[in-house]
Amino acid sequence: MKVQIIGIGLIGGSFALAIKSAFPEAEIFGSDANEAHVKKAKELSVIDHLAKAEDVKNADVVIVAVPVDVASQVLEETLGLISDETLVFDAGSTKEGICQQVANHPKRRNFLAAHPIAGTEFSGPEAAIPNLYRDKTNIICEVEKTAFKLQEKALDIFQKLGMRIRYMDPKSHDRHIAYVSHLSHISSFMLGKTVLEKERNERDIFDLAGSGFASTVRLAKSSPAMWAPIFQQNKSNVLETLNEYINNLTQFKELLEKDDFQEVYQEMQRTNHIRTILNGIN
Amino acid sequence: MKVQIIGIGLIGGSFALAIKSAFPEAEIFGSDANEAHVKKAKELSVIDHLAKAEDVKNADVVIVAVPVDVASQVLEETLGLISDETLVFDAGSTKEGICQQVANHPKRRNFLAAHPIAGTEFSGPEAAIPNLYRDKTNIICEVEKTAFKLQEKALDIFQKLGMRIRYMDPKSHDRHIAYVSHLSHISSFMLGKTVLEKERNERDIFDLAGSGFASTVRLAKSSPAMWAPIFQQNKSNVLETLNEYINNLTQFKELLEKDDFQEVYQEMQRTNHIRTILNGIN
Repeated sequence: MKVQIIGIGLIGGSFALAIKSAFPEAEIFGSDANEAHVKKAKELSVIDHLAKAEDVKNADVVIVAVPVDVASQVLEETLGLISDETLVFDAGSTKEGICQQVANHPKRRNFLAAHPIAGTEFSGPEAAIPNLYRDKTNIICEVEKTAFKLQEKALDIFQKLGMRIRYMDPKSHDRHIAYVSHLSHISSFMLGKTVLEKERNERDIFDLAGSGFASTVRLAKSSPAMWAPIFQQNKSNVLETLNEYINNLTQFKELLEKDDFQEVYQEMQRTNHIRTILNGIN
Repeated sequence: MKVQIIGIGLIGGSFALAIKSAFPEAEIFGSDANEAHVKKAKELSVIDHLAKAEDVKNADVVIVAVPVDVASQVLEETLGLISDETLVFDAGSTKEGICQQVANHPKRRNFLAAHPIAGTEFSGPEAAIPNLYRDKTNIICEVEKTAFKLQEKALDIFQKLGMRIRYMDPKSHDRHIAYVSHLSHISSFMLGKTVLEKERNERDIFDLAGSGFASTVRLAKSSPAMWAPIFQQNKSNVLETLNEYINNLTQFKELLEKDDFQEVYQEMQRTNHIRTILNGIN
């Protein structure tokens, strides 16, 4: 099985490592707009061969793992080059745009729209890890638009990588994921910003930070090159979640201002319910 | 060494376990306003003996590990009962109030105001863990107001538990800790609330949550009984941080609204700087 991965960063590189481990006979070809990335990936044995865009014509599977602002274009170019038997899937955090973009492409049936809910705050080929996808959810959109045999091929890969599958329409995906992923990134980035601004005047503030702060601000280490395009593509859903978040914070602030600590307590207790819901996510 | 711990939850219980491990000859006495807690602690061998408030008169060391709204009163009662050689320290997340409260107490020199920056999102004696304090920072306030010999005794304990010490005045402590601890809890609770509200209408939303969301929302599992009093005692600092946080979120929202994704990118890139600062915190 020849697999070409376009975009050899955390996401693409982790697919490379996981596929090599699950399919020992697979040959992994890697390409990246950033020449240094693809060289580093080869050096680290994340990929077997350096590749060019046109090499996808020989691939059995192509994985598009590039920032969402360029994914549609890369996908279109790829679909224009591949054979009829080639499976192409993406891994982007927004799905409505890309699905619309290729809706009428003659090779639409070669494409599977996917979003593995997996990642870390690190980026680049050095950040790739073989078990990134194990026990993680993979959301597949518009599965009915992909050819049966290629659905089968994709599911075989996802299953051997240890992923569980959820089917969803692209619109619902983008709405839901704004809440459980995109908003967390903004809350974390702005928390980091607020504390960094303070640090400028008050030295040593971070010296006092503990594991709670580190956990809450972890996502503020994420790649802007990946996240700015996501916020752009999912702007209306992200704005909705952000408005609700700001409203909830403002309401909490007002409770403090009027010394209603009974209600402050209640608010927190009601939210504690998230304990039971989060069981199993780590 | 006889150690009495008042409040056998996550914090007090973890002190019990850590002290037993570092001082094998220590005898741990535990008391708690919640009878079930202290019984559970005995059952789990977190403490050696059930104790009453008046037993502190026989203790060499007393640790006050109760919510900050009752800590001052418990401390005053304790100071009224102990011997001249007894060390009393607290572990509360606010320091200005308690230091003011006991400023003129005849036994002020028996008290050391401490705040170990350590915890988890869990609570109660079942949550106690022996290594909670290892490699963590312990902030000590107004150290000069504690008797030399008792300072020494306290430092010996903290050192054997593997903590590093930072000295600070109570006012600065409360200001700084509002940024690196109290604000994270609010941001996390309100993130949890925002997503839970959505969940009511849209089923399965949490099924899509990954490790990023789990990390950012982790602190929303924390105990309201511990946190509501902290927000009350540190109200003015917490309000200041919360205002700055809401302003930063609002400004970010406005950048999205006017499609200034260049600046969205820049904002995130500037905040990425937190990577280097957070090294070493986990």
